[in-house]
Amino acid sequence: MRQFDINEDPHRRYNPLINEWVLVSPHRAKRPWQGQKEAINTVALPEYDPECYLCAGNVRANGEVNPPYESSFVFENDFAALKQEAIAFDGNAEGSFFKAQPERGISRVVCFSPRHDLTLPEMDVNGIVNIIHTWQKEYTTLGSVDYINHVQIFENKGSVMGCSNPHPHGQIWAQSSLPTQVQKTQDNLKAYFEKNGTNLLQDYLNEELKVKERVVVENDHFAAIVPFWAIWPYETMIISKRHITKITDFTEDEVAAFAEVLKKLTTKYDNLFETSFPYSSGIHQAPTDGEEHPEWQFHMHFYPPLLRSASVKKFMVGYEMMGESQRDITPEKSAEMLRNLSEVHYKQNS
Amino acid sequence: MRQFDINEDPHRRYNPLINEWVLVSPHRAKRPWQGQKEAINTVALPEYDPECYLCAGNVRANGEVNPPYESSFVFENDFAALKQEAIAFDGNAEGSFFKAQPERGISRVVCFSPRHDLTLPEMDVNGIVNIIHTWQKEYTTLGSVDYINHVQIFENKGSVMGCSNPHPHGQIWAQSSLPTQVQKTQDNLKAYFEKNGTNLLQDYLNEELKVKERVVVENDHFAAIVPFWAIWPYETMIISKRHITKITDFTEDEVAAFAEVLKKLTTKYDNLFETSFPYSSGIHQAPTDGEEHPEWQFHMHFYPPLLRSASVKKFMVGYEMMGESQRDITPEKSAEMLRNLSEVHYKQNS
Ligand SMILES: O=P(O)(O)O[C@H]1O[C@H](CO)[C@@H](O)[C@H](O)[C@H]1O
Ligand SMILES: O=P(O)(O)O[C@H]1O[C@H](CO)[C@@H](O)[C@H](O)[C@H]1O
Repeated sequence: MRQFDINEDPHRRYNPLINEWVLVSPHRAKRPWQGQKEAINTVALPEYDPECYLCAGNVRANGEVNPPYESSFVFENDFAALKQEAIAFDGNAEGSFFKAQPERGISRVVCFSPRHDLTLPEMDVNGIVNIIHTWQKEYTTLGSVDYINHVQIFENKGSVMGCSNPHPHGQIWAQSSLPTQVQKTQDNLKAYFEKNGTNLLQDYLNEELKVKERVVVENDHFAAIVPFWAIWPYETMIISKRHITKITDFTEDEVAAFAEVLKKLTTKYDNLFETSFPYSSGIHQAPTDGEEHPEWQFHMHFYPPLLRSASVKKFMVGYEMMGESQRDITPEKSAEMLRNLSEVHYKQNS
Repeated sequence: MRQFDINEDPHRRYNPLINEWVLVSPHRAKRPWQGQKEAINTVALPEYDPECYLCAGNVRANGEVNPPYESSFVFENDFAALKQEAIAFDGNAEGSFFKAQPERGISRVVCFSPRHDLTLPEMDVNGIVNIIHTWQKEYTTLGSVDYINHVQIFENKGSVMGCSNPHPHGQIWAQSSLPTQVQKTQDNLKAYFEKNGTNLLQDYLNEELKVKERVVVENDHFAAIVPFWAIWPYETMIISKRHITKITDFTEDEVAAFAEVLKKLTTKYDNLFETSFPYSSGIHQAPTDGEEHPEWQFHMHFYPPLLRSASVKKFMVGYEMMGESQRDITPEKSAEMLRNLSEVHYKQNS
């Protein structure tokens, strides 16, 4: 019988953060693709778009006028999924299958720059430092609202990720409950911490830094790696090296180092298929419930859908929805490809 | 303080099958959409396409020739994600973060009909009965392979669901391990069964049949409902009324009744936006591990992505990936819309 070869044989890998497995089919990367192609936007954007509701000075759908902002700009989402109003609730009947509860929260939009045409990899490090400062401020302000226990910072980039405006921006949804994925992560981090007295993600990162094969970008304070259990073809995670539970604990050196990793990682992403690389990204960190959370380690996920080219993405569909996530290319191969790409943006080379 | 109104106020609902919550934002349905539009295919397909690798008599990528099949036709996936070969494996180092294991399995393609241009709603009930018989046969054959413990029957329909060929077909991935979603479901079904001595999904269905508001199609043996905890805008689940753990336990009356529900449900789907409605569907039932599984109840999930029209889908992206699934329209509203649609296919009306 042949011995297991992780680079060639179908296998499953375990994700200890959410206690789930992923099916890996390395041999399947050769499959031809005759299905849906994503549209590629090659039209150069203007620095200012009079039609854009996020550009400085423009009027939004609700009639409000954006200020003439010069770095980042935060406002309440005009079509928020969460509302601030307190709602009286009598609870659910014991044992009922119809279990629901009102949820209070605040949704904000964070414009990254007044420049309509710049995404993270094309901004300078100072511009990114500014965004990180804004995230810190929002985490503090929103987190100190009495009923807010979790602040989810995220970005949907690219129309394939449901982003309806190319103006560089992210969002923050802050709410009373810990969302499902965060609760799962916290449960697993906590169980590990209680068992080992150490932090799961710090221990994991130390192992990754020894073997190096999944490391994409690294500096003194952070590393971007393709997790051993990544589900998306070029999924990565930025993890802080020091034990930091939340973004507001960064030193100014760490802010600068995080900005540098963000710029380098997203530049490599754009360089991979020479396209503005779509992804959803988001920060996972300690909840704002007033408790100490030594089990948490600051990290940021990047979930990019592209698989083979600027127009062919991975579909997480039938088997993936009913069974489990599946990937064709190994995380090691993806990391190697990203690692070998230039840190200079392809547009600056041409 | 206003009293909680589940039809108007943001809230979370609980899914006992997988122990997860979904965020519901009923008020958000009014949000305008300026983002990505899906392509709509309005070209009528031929009954036979000489270029199609699934049509009868045609040659596939690997050189094999499809037989002149007349109802359904099953073959091994030419680019299978799983392989049958047994692989020797020494196990993982204790406590390692790099936990992987080889996975054995068989992937098959099930052509639903020799007709290139017919999907489930346009086939007659006899044609669908034939597909159900094929699923039964495959569940038995694959399930009796010694190392196969789970048989996942599913369909990806429409290019937006990663389906690269419009010829009506589904797939079956059978494997050694219980996939993540199935394991989770089984754990929750089992805990309920051990606690209550009854079957979670049967008890749930009985409650749904009392209130009726989420029922879409019903006959003597099955009901199609929008689950209370549905995440996709028009998600549904077909559940057997009798306690049936697997498809091979159907009586012939139940086969016919299941075919009828499949036809009516998919017809309503097509009628909703007068388009060939994309979805991923899949059957969840007892594993083939040789154990009795009284906790299981046969059911089939439909996860369709469309939200507002034939070209505007729901994006499960940033917040949904980092936090939890989110929906705008309530399950009750979706069920009402589907229920009120004709059971005659729109193409037959025009
Ligand atoms: O096997 P197919 O139809 O080529 O592929 C499709 O379904 C598979 C199973 O859900 C997915 O893994 C693929 O991403 C999708 O494109
Ligand atoms: O708020 P936006 O950008 O309009 O909407 C986008 O992001 C949200 C949060 O991930 C999703 O719920 C929407 O489906 C998506 O289109």
